[in-house]
Amino acid sequence: MATERAAPAGAPHRPTKGEATHDLIVRAALAQAVEVGLEGVSLGVLAASLGLSKSGLFAHFKSKEALQLAVLDEAVERFNERVIIPALTRPRGEPRLRALFERALDWVDDNGHGQGCIFRSLAHEYDDRPGPIRDRLVESQRDWRRTVVRAVELAVREHHLDGKTDPELLAFELVGLQGAYHESRKLMDDPRAREWALRAYQRLVEHAQPRSPRR
Amino acid sequence: MATERAAPAGAPHRPTKGEATHDLIVRAALAQAVEVGLEGVSLGVLAASLGLSKSGLFAHFKSKEALQLAVLDEAVERFNERVIIPALTRPRGEPRLRALFERALDWVDDNGHGQGCIFRSLAHEYDDRPGPIRDRLVESQRDWRRTVVRAVELAVREHHLDGKTDPELLAFELVGLQGAYHESRKLMDDPRAREWALRAYQRLVEHAQPRSPRR
Repeated sequence: MATERAAPAGAPHRPTKGEATHDLIVRAALAQAVEVGLEGVSLGVLAASLGLSKSGLFAHFKSKEALQLAVLDEAVERFNERVIIPALTRPRGEPRLRALFERALDWVDDNGHGQGCIFRSLAHEYDDRPGPIRDRLVESQRDWRRTVVRAVELAVREHHLDGKTDPELLAFELVGLQGAYHESRKLMDDPRAREWALRAYQRLVEHAQPRSPRR
Repeated sequence: MATERAAPAGAPHRPTKGEATHDLIVRAALAQAVEVGLEGVSLGVLAASLGLSKSGLFAHFKSKEALQLAVLDEAVERFNERVIIPALTRPRGEPRLRALFERALDWVDDNGHGQGCIFRSLAHEYDDRPGPIRDRLVESQRDWRRTVVRAVELAVREHHLDGKTDPELLAFELVGLQGAYHESRKLMDDPRAREWALRAYQRLVEHAQPRSPRR
């Protein structure tokens, strides 16, 4: 269809009707997945809620799995937009590491599709379910760990953290605190969760401070 | 029925046929819940797999919810037997705290119903689902935190940890490490997970050591 051709090079990209429908489907499916898991996404329910025919929906996604992967990619994109990219605007070193940590807590509180972290839900849905979705999910979580590891490495280079710091161990510890925060907030509804998470972050960073500051 | 009467006081308790069937149902339902979640437990599938009629099963559990609560209690009982009770036989203080921590990692590896922690799965299944099962689950997780807090308090009293240690914060950090271990092992299949968890434990304990040892 002519309306779905790419915009001329150089011109600002305006989504075609097809692309807009595609995005609409993905966003609605993500909202559904937050409630019932990715396996629970129903193409029938989705089509009905969007006023599409099931075959109209299949014109955009050849299979349920293709839609599920698109939903996961959309969640990753939102995490990038809300957590990683804003943190990367902070100065290298401890400020950037802290921004990553605090924004990951904010993501648990409110990530644009309700409280809780969809990646944690999906981890429990897919940890025993091999296949392309699990692979993509594992990849996204490895990317997140690598982002934290890289922020720690830069903090070492900036002499905000000691040269003996093990970046992978510190990333493991920080991801652990995010998990404890998630559990304390979402399951146990404990108002002290954020204070604990921030104090624990502070302790980790203080214990990793250079023994003989160079500045 | 005569066969289901309690044994005379003082005599060792031998399970009646009714009790044995009850336990059999709960164990089978727990195995099913590990696969499909507690909401996914099907009384029909369960009855068929045990060679019982559905009404025979209902004679033991008046409702699906009653069975689900019994399954959760069974999981808590196993956690007590495999993690808490053996750790309580270790000397008070850091040895007991370490035993709790290490056995909680073992629980993730193999808890008698496959890899992974059923409480973490249930947390994701029930965190948005208010009701008696969620309440019981939250209670069990609060009990676990309290057990860790209590072990930290005793380690402070034994002068293995500094008097300024905040037991609730340290418990939050330790529970976080268990979560990071779970994710690294079960989702990311990372062979370094245990080494990281043990090193992170060691760091937490070393940083909480008394400034001026009294021994």
